Amino acid sequence: MTNRTVITAASNPKIKHVKALLSKGKVRRSELCFAAEGVHLFEEAPDALLREIYVAESFFKTSEEAVLKKNKPVYIVEDRLFEQISDTQSPQGILCVVQIPYADPMQLIGTDQPLFLLLDEIRDPGNLGTMIRTGEAAGVSGIWLTDGCADPYQPKVVRSAMGALYRVPVISLNQTEEDLQQMAQIWKDKGIRLYGTLLGAVQVYDKPDYRTGTAFVIGNESRGVSPEVLALCDEQIRIPMRGQVESLNAAIAASLLMFEAARQRRM
Amino acid sequence: MTNRTVITAASNPKIKHVKALLSKGKVRRSELCFAAEGVHLFEEAPDALLREIYVAESFFKTSEEAVLKKNKPVYIVEDRLFEQISDTQSPQGILCVVQIPYADPMQLIGTDQPLFLLLDEIRDPGNLGTMIRTGEAAGVSGIWLTDGCADPYQPKVVRSAMGALYRVPVISLNQTEEDLQQMAQIWKDKGIRLYGTLLGAVQVYDKPDYRTGTAFVIGNESRGVSPEVLALCDEQIRIPMRGQVESLNAAIAASLLMFEAARQRRM
Repeated sequence: MTNRTVITAASNPKIKHVKALLSKGKVRRSELCFAAEGVHLFEEAPDALLREIYVAESFFKTSEEAVLKKNKPVYIVEDRLFEQISDTQSPQGILCVVQIPYADPMQLIGTDQPLFLLLDEIRDPGNLGTMIRTGEAAGVSGIWLTDGCADPYQPKVVRSAMGALYRVPVISLNQTEEDLQQMAQIWKDKGIRLYGTLLGAVQVYDKPDYRTGTAFVIGNESRGVSPEVLALCDEQIRIPMRGQVESLNAAIAASLLMFEAARQRRM
Repeated sequence: MTNRTVITAASNPKIKHVKALLSKGKVRRSELCFAAEGVHLFEEAPDALLREIYVAESFFKTSEEAVLKKNKPVYIVEDRLFEQISDTQSPQGILCVVQIPYADPMQLIGTDQPLFLLLDEIRDPGNLGTMIRTGEAAGVSGIWLTDGCADPYQPKVVRSAMGALYRVPVISLNQTEEDLQQMAQIWKDKGIRLYGTLLGAVQVYDKPDYRTGTAFVIGNESRGVSPEVLALCDEQIRIPMRGQVESLNAAIAASLLMFEAARQRRM
């Protein structure tokens, strides 16, 4: 029978732990797990990654079978207490503790004709989550984050990614400038071309051939791609814009590039 | 000399009016104007649409010249009071009252090979604003909203659109099903083809020729395009998705379609 425990006190160490996983990147990184809230993220959580299930008492009454079927430790939490730990305004009543999936950089680089996204200091959690979700849909092989990016396992990113975090390999770089150069060199050796987006670039984004190893660099929402990262790019590209728009939203720009690659790879 | 007034009381009718413009769609629709907050939206406001400028006392000290140069009525508001009326968490200290630009439906339809977006019950203000901003960049001729859409002049849409609302013709339909059918008939008569996005469609979005009159229908975030509107479409298209993603964010889907049309029209 599944291990189930009823929790009624906010001082319960399990509750404190979940709260820390929701609010503290340091705790997530040291324990290599994160909290995924909501029915959709519960349903999609792969068995191999799912560790614990926290469920509000009233929600458990209507979902007991689905929850117990997962055969993982279940913690039934008083509704009032669940609302306290929840990161959302209208809690659905279920939250999972999930292991951060391990992505092996060398294995990723060894993928046949990989399609990468290299995100350079993307700070907005909603943007980051949307890029991970859209990345999966476009068929990216992996997403690389420079260490100025938002934490991909914080609740807002997890929600926006809508389950894609379980499936798309995400690698958080913890880099010095030298590490970046070294990584770019390895990519080059493998024939992976780095494309940096730059408003003033001459080359239009739909001209290069993305059917071989490709990595798109998307820069920070207000400053664009950093000079250090731009220096590593093999080619600079731009998305032509009409009107007086100064720039596109970062997630929109990333989507246009990834789906252009997907379009070429379908042909 | 520019007409300028200092306001210190929350009970001042001008302050009440601005608050109403920020919070009430009914007031915006009856007065045909809206409030646009922040430096960027102030700077981009076209002279012909700008009616009044509200500026926080301390911000006015550093921006007096730029504010007075516009030659519009200026209301200087105590900082504390400005914070009260502001819709943002960290007010920049400036807000304009702007006339809703008039877009003539028949003139829009008469555009040479127009590129339209027809938004069907798009509810998320951030999505709507992003679509208007991205629409300008992709070169759309106009954006049509069914009456289930979010109000395009509410503060969050105005912010996300980043000035595009001043320039992209936006038409809010106030329709019955018959009105929609009539409109679709006029579009057809003008040779404008309606493309509805549908997850199960056979046709891939990059196959049709969008160089002639084209309208893309984007449906509600959770329910997709409504059956009434889908019935009006000449063709159903889908964006191929890899992985286990169920759908794309509505603003991302709209961007992919509009930029595919832009790509074809550049060739």
